[in-house]
Amino acid sequence: MKTVTCTAPVNIAVIKYWGKRDTELILPTNSSLSVTLSQDILHSKTTISAAKEYDHDRLWLNGIEEDITKNKRMHNCFRETRAIRQAMEAKAEAEGKPIEPLSTYPVHVCSENNFPTAAGLASSASGLAALVYTLSQLFELTISTSEVSRIARQGSGSACRSLFGGFVAWEMGEKEDGSDSYAVQIAPETHWPDLQALICVVSDAKKGTSSTAGMQSTIKTSLLMNERINNIVPARMEGMKKAVLDKDFQSFAELTMRDSNQFHAVCLDTYPPIFYLNDTSRAIIQLIHEYNATSPDGKLKAAYTYDAGPNAVIYAPKENMAEIIQLIGHYFPSNKEPAEFFANPYNAISGKLGEDFLPKDHAKFNQNVIPVQPVGSVSRLLHTKVDDGPRVLSQDESLLKEDGLPKRLA
Amino acid sequence: MKTVTCTAPVNIAVIKYWGKRDTELILPTNSSLSVTLSQDILHSKTTISAAKEYDHDRLWLNGIEEDITKNKRMHNCFRETRAIRQAMEAKAEAEGKPIEPLSTYPVHVCSENNFPTAAGLASSASGLAALVYTLSQLFELTISTSEVSRIARQGSGSACRSLFGGFVAWEMGEKEDGSDSYAVQIAPETHWPDLQALICVVSDAKKGTSSTAGMQSTIKTSLLMNERINNIVPARMEGMKKAVLDKDFQSFAELTMRDSNQFHAVCLDTYPPIFYLNDTSRAIIQLIHEYNATSPDGKLKAAYTYDAGPNAVIYAPKENMAEIIQLIGHYFPSNKEPAEFFANPYNAISGKLGEDFLPKDHAKFNQNVIPVQPVGSVSRLLHTKVDDGPRVLSQDESLLKEDGLPKRLA
Repeated sequence: MKTVTCTAPVNIAVIKYWGKRDTELILPTNSSLSVTLSQDILHSKTTISAAKEYDHDRLWLNGIEEDITKNKRMHNCFRETRAIRQAMEAKAEAEGKPIEPLSTYPVHVCSENNFPTAAGLASSASGLAALVYTLSQLFELTISTSEVSRIARQGSGSACRSLFGGFVAWEMGEKEDGSDSYAVQIAPETHWPDLQALICVVSDAKKGTSSTAGMQSTIKTSLLMNERINNIVPARMEGMKKAVLDKDFQSFAELTMRDSNQFHAVCLDTYPPIFYLNDTSRAIIQLIHEYNATSPDGKLKAAYTYDAGPNAVIYAPKENMAEIIQLIGHYFPSNKEPAEFFANPYNAISGKLGEDFLPKDHAKFNQNVIPVQPVGSVSRLLHTKVDDGPRVLSQDESLLKEDGLPKRLA
Repeated sequence: MKTVTCTAPVNIAVIKYWGKRDTELILPTNSSLSVTLSQDILHSKTTISAAKEYDHDRLWLNGIEEDITKNKRMHNCFRETRAIRQAMEAKAEAEGKPIEPLSTYPVHVCSENNFPTAAGLASSASGLAALVYTLSQLFELTISTSEVSRIARQGSGSACRSLFGGFVAWEMGEKEDGSDSYAVQIAPETHWPDLQALICVVSDAKKGTSSTAGMQSTIKTSLLMNERINNIVPARMEGMKKAVLDKDFQSFAELTMRDSNQFHAVCLDTYPPIFYLNDTSRAIIQLIHEYNATSPDGKLKAAYTYDAGPNAVIYAPKENMAEIIQLIGHYFPSNKEPAEFFANPYNAISGKLGEDFLPKDHAKFNQNVIPVQPVGSVSRLLHTKVDDGPRVLSQDESLLKEDGLPKRLA
């Protein structure tokens, strides 16, 4: 019996992935680029153990057993990693130095997120990345991280970007078999450690369109989408890579906001239209534009981005974070206990949340740019930062007991 | 002293005007097409009197005197109509049959809307159309209605479409001087009298971006806008003209909804983004799509469209209106007196508003498509229909007394 436990991070795209040219292999219609966020706040954790004594493959997600054979995308990841392991075993065998035939053993998989799956915080990306990374460690696969990402891509497209820390591009590739569609690291987290993020979890009664269904509807019906795919995103990818390499927050911020808005624009141009932003999302956008517009030196100080849901992720240099947190805290009040509402791991603010919210030196800041929103419009604030890729944990962090069953069940 | 009183209707575009290629002459970047709505419910009324005894040009808007010299766009309309009158007077003089030199007389202008200007119901279009139409009647201009519309265009772009009843195209034209940019009637109201509309006035705390500023910002910053202007709208104009001529509600409805959504999509792709739809607008869109999706014969039964604000205009054949009114009445409750909330001139419903809201024969209609919205989310419902163009009223409808001063002041 061999057991490995790993965690993988969440990534939030600044150039958005929306649309597949191959839904089976999960090949995108455009490249995308993301920032990997700290696992201290958000991560998926997976333990996999392989043992010839096991009866069959079993899977527990957040403490609930699921039928692993019914999860086609996960199945693809098992098939791919086992095939590589099998080739390694055959080669070792042929060379007279046989290795353990792990590819033939049933596995037990136990996976948990340290955040609610339902919060719409890209849990499928971190979850599939953790699964595939753990499989690659379990099987001791001698392949590059980009090759691991190629496999994770087949589990959940954006999962491929969670295989690296820092700034990560998913190059769309051109080949029909998807062999050139994988993630590459543009720069590690150490290149621009100053970049931080504030996640604003936005309450929404409405259940949005799933991104899997939504993106194909956009491809099929939006007359604006081709222009985005063929002309706009390729230029933006170049611009964003340069912005990251130059640590140029001005270009990074403008491209991030423009690309988020354009992604939601093509959703609106879909027929029937797809809406992910709600009035709270809109209010955050207007607040950030006012904050930027009144910046004393005329420079952008923050950038918002929204995935397929109403939650905002605000990227900003560390030095602006206290102001941004106070702004959000003021206009989006909560009646929760402060510690429950606001995850403040870097002690970004010392005073009370929402106090002294007027940004320093912003002489022209219009306090009435938006009204103070109803209590609870934003349900949680998480302060995080650019950080590293998947981590291998020690054996005592295992989610499985020695008998191969979960330590915790829901 | 000569006095003329006219009314002009509101028009609501189904292919949207957004963007000027010449802001001075008000020349659009694309053609547009609208439906003229009944003046029984919504109109602008203007009385103009010309008298050589008057001291100077004076203007009263909704009972408040304004400085006519400060209103550049209105000034353009006076200049153009007076110039044509002057040429007529010169010609008559030359022919030895002089006419009254009205072009040299000061005028008193009194104009009112029978709906609140602030409601965002295209009051500038009906207002400028009423002004220019009244001037053309006052001066007895021997020009075509399209030529009158060319003048109104210089007052407010979409005003040119309010010079005709029925279905009206504003052909963008190509010439630099704007001489080929005017409205033409595609079909009169009698061609398709069955087409009705329900205006849902949506409450919104937020003051939206003015359309004048907004459209130029879109032209300048949206990377999707060229595709719309150059390729999408020209094809849609042809499709929409055909749909109107064929009285083909299916094509009319789909094009109307798609074009409304695309207009709001390019607003969202503007930098900074422009938002006109709010959560109430979104909810109406979702409700109409559910209503259409569950239609027993699979046909579209209603189409929404939104201008530069959150108000919905729902177009539908007369036979569907009772169902639509009950649907909206149910999901968007009001605590106003029924008669104050709902303008019901055609007695479309007999029972209580919001009762029996489930559309007949829509077996699969999902009642939970949206929750019942907070009371007052929609502040008013107006049932109206396609109808005629500007009307000349009798002298006793004048807004001015015999002394040339307003009968009513605010």
